[in-house]
Amino acid sequence: MGKKEVTAITPTRVEDYPEWYQQVVKASDLAESSPVRGCMVIKPWGYSIWENIMRVLNNLFKETGVKNAYFPLFIPLSFLEKEAEHVEGFAKECAVVTHHRLKKGPDGSLVPAGALNEPLVVRPTSETIIGDSFSKWVSSYRDLPILINQWANVVRWEMRPRIFLRTSEFLWQEGHSAHATQEEAVERTNMMLDAYEKLAKDYLAIPVIKGRKTPAERFPGAVDTLCMEAMMQDRKALQAGTSHFLGQNFARASNIKFQSAQEKEEYAWTVSWGASTRLIGGLIMTHGDDDGLILPPKIASAHVVLLPIIKKPSDRSGVMEYTESLVKELRDTSYDDRRLEVEIDDRDIGGARGWDWIKKGIPLRVEIGPRDISNNSVFVGRRDRGHRDKASIKRDRFVSEITTILDEIQENLFERALSLREAHTVNIEGKNEFYEFFTPENPEKPEIHGGFALSHWCGSDACELKIKEDLKVTIRCIPLDGESEKGGCICCNQPSMHRVVFAKSY
Amino acid sequence: MGKKEVTAITPTRVEDYPEWYQQVVKASDLAESSPVRGCMVIKPWGYSIWENIMRVLNNLFKETGVKNAYFPLFIPLSFLEKEAEHVEGFAKECAVVTHHRLKKGPDGSLVPAGALNEPLVVRPTSETIIGDSFSKWVSSYRDLPILINQWANVVRWEMRPRIFLRTSEFLWQEGHSAHATQEEAVERTNMMLDAYEKLAKDYLAIPVIKGRKTPAERFPGAVDTLCMEAMMQDRKALQAGTSHFLGQNFARASNIKFQSAQEKEEYAWTVSWGASTRLIGGLIMTHGDDDGLILPPKIASAHVVLLPIIKKPSDRSGVMEYTESLVKELRDTSYDDRRLEVEIDDRDIGGARGWDWIKKGIPLRVEIGPRDISNNSVFVGRRDRGHRDKASIKRDRFVSEITTILDEIQENLFERALSLREAHTVNIEGKNEFYEFFTPENPEKPEIHGGFALSHWCGSDACELKIKEDLKVTIRCIPLDGESEKGGCICCNQPSMHRVVFAKSY
Repeated sequence: MGKKEVTAITPTRVEDYPEWYQQVVKASDLAESSPVRGCMVIKPWGYSIWENIMRVLNNLFKETGVKNAYFPLFIPLSFLEKEAEHVEGFAKECAVVTHHRLKKGPDGSLVPAGALNEPLVVRPTSETIIGDSFSKWVSSYRDLPILINQWANVVRWEMRPRIFLRTSEFLWQEGHSAHATQEEAVERTNMMLDAYEKLAKDYLAIPVIKGRKTPAERFPGAVDTLCMEAMMQDRKALQAGTSHFLGQNFARASNIKFQSAQEKEEYAWTVSWGASTRLIGGLIMTHGDDDGLILPPKIASAHVVLLPIIKKPSDRSGVMEYTESLVKELRDTSYDDRRLEVEIDDRDIGGARGWDWIKKGIPLRVEIGPRDISNNSVFVGRRDRGHRDKASIKRDRFVSEITTILDEIQENLFERALSLREAHTVNIEGKNEFYEFFTPENPEKPEIHGGFALSHWCGSDACELKIKEDLKVTIRCIPLDGESEKGGCICCNQPSMHRVVFAKSY
Repeated sequence: MGKKEVTAITPTRVEDYPEWYQQVVKASDLAESSPVRGCMVIKPWGYSIWENIMRVLNNLFKETGVKNAYFPLFIPLSFLEKEAEHVEGFAKECAVVTHHRLKKGPDGSLVPAGALNEPLVVRPTSETIIGDSFSKWVSSYRDLPILINQWANVVRWEMRPRIFLRTSEFLWQEGHSAHATQEEAVERTNMMLDAYEKLAKDYLAIPVIKGRKTPAERFPGAVDTLCMEAMMQDRKALQAGTSHFLGQNFARASNIKFQSAQEKEEYAWTVSWGASTRLIGGLIMTHGDDDGLILPPKIASAHVVLLPIIKKPSDRSGVMEYTESLVKELRDTSYDDRRLEVEIDDRDIGGARGWDWIKKGIPLRVEIGPRDISNNSVFVGRRDRGHRDKASIKRDRFVSEITTILDEIQENLFERALSLREAHTVNIEGKNEFYEFFTPENPEKPEIHGGFALSHWCGSDACELKIKEDLKVTIRCIPLDGESEKGGCICCNQPSMHRVVFAKSY
């Protein structure tokens, strides 16, 4: 028997997946919990991933005419109440501001003072406050469409927070648009889902299934919620972006009316779409391994780290000179739509140095020692390969091929994630088989099991609820590209015309 | 007598400066008030200025090793209380979260529920919550310096809000650093002020005086506050960025300790620096004229608007083709560190179209009609010149010279602002003259008068306070480049060794 491979992360994914996740977040220096319950501190290595997501989405949005703006953090309670389903959906998780100053209490400590006439809710989402602006901006069909996005923090109080995946405060973008016709609004809803798909596939290297939520899983107040779902390595689903067709519900609530070309007064059709720092959680769980984080090059905080090897003081100047000149050369190279981001780490901490960068998931590690220099080469490790799998490459070739190597890594990560999903996505026809699929074989190790079950569903809330209660399995989406097919509901065997994606989820 | 020039903004600056400001904000479509008291909606044209400021500061900060991160919106009350002067400074303007959900009240309407054990304050600034993270990140001198910046919204409750200048919620960046030595922290404090100076002078085209705040005007909890002050067109001062040397005050409060190279346990030295959306208010008041906003090209939302002139339907295709090809050519041009941003406006609304762009302050307006096309030329208006002052330029020449023209505009705006400041900055020795300088000649038109008085000050709080009470004039700063000079305090005539900047301020 071979001896057990030492891994940088303890426990491994198989040993304890949820704890592995927490340990990767820590070891990769992405983020940490804060003393404020449910709120996280996003550290520089994590925040730069978010900055890259912002850059990519800003470009994708801008191409479709969307402009950035900024709306108030606070929403008057009365605004939130304008749309009944909406407030119902968020009431249980609202941070409420009730006072606007502090004063000395009887025991000398500070207490809230200056009670507000109307409580303010810290935005959980901004349909109602942005709707108020839209109602002022629109009077004629000529003012439409309005296409707005904001980058913002939002708060949804979490009783069981989990870093990146479920935090009381998170960062996101929320797009909001108003249109003269239903058709145009529906088209926009799809268009923004496509932008998310592009982000997920081409940048995050996460394969996704685009689909439609069931009525029970819709955004509160929406007519239709489109989403994309990705499979994590524990085979659970993660929702990675949603786009909501809101019909005229919010236009009625916020009084967004316009004079049509036919001089009739009509309510606008609105759309909203959002993606959040949760995507970083998805990135970790899609690509990470038992040595830590693995970052797809197109979204990585940095592409390459140079590790000068200085074994004796007399080596230093030669090694550092070679390193600095290589840095300069690499930084002059473009990759995707930005410059190559290069780190240098000359800390004298032995093998821990290489491991630090493995755990942080940087795509390429380049060791540079006196022997490499005399060969005019570099010693390269790729994060998509084992940590011992390193190769000497001529310096010139490395510089000229680095973007090709990065593309290869990007592609490999996507293919690996796709293979995992395909391996654990099955058509299931029988109820017993379905229940078995979602029941852990070993009840003491329930973390990794199941996957995506493509099964028929009759469309009833009752069947959806029954499966949720029995198995904690939900309908993740009704795939947009699913073909019409006759079958029997996995729960009640009543006729069904399409398969849906069932899975456990985050 | 010439007849009065018609202006796009009513009232003019001379007629009513504060109201002129509000009207420019409105006419230029930068921002608007929101239904949430003291909070503003930053519209796309305004937000893109902020995005440009973010880009410039991110680059300047990054050059000095600063990395972006993100910390919680909420600060536990007990954290804020850790530094006595600090909490004292912010207690009167804190938004306080006391509940984490909503429930149906007796009359069926929603009321706050789920009272928090400890109230949370919406961050007015983040020294205390970031200090908590620093205390965990630092253990040895090898961990220092830590150089962090965050882009965030902050809330300081305002009883008399004014858009961009004084809002309850505003956007800003706050930099925070921790250092092993006092010298290094002081150096960082100066370095970040220099970054702000570069932003102000080279991008916003706002001349500034760098200086030190008096003890009375310091950031609550700071040992030393550096600032830069700009003169607005009503001759009042606007503080446009501050950098605080915090000594070991916040390190003690947050327990940021490290083991020194000599193996002694020491408190770190911390620094914080910030600039906010207030800068946009400064931009408006520095450059705007009676026709609206004027944007310096290096920070402008867009550089040039193309205005196709289509007088009869048969002109359309030729004019639009010429316009589109020009757009393409211009967008391939770089200006400063971004691509030229080009707008096209083909709305059929007559003269209002050109005026819209004048009011929005775009640096260049380019009219393109059939006659221009037959001459292979364009008809160009510059926003730094009168609205009638337009000139025909050969198309090729325009394309090749546009960045030079933009540089000229940038330079002109800076020089104009500098001239205004120099014209209204005076050395004043006598108390009577000082009081006269700050007293409006016409009490019915008090808006524009005074300026910067460079006068001696003995250093006493009493004199500073007396002048503030008598005249609403404060010491804006003790200039960093001020030379030592003997004189008598403008208030008490006691000996003084330096002049300070006295002014009314925003």
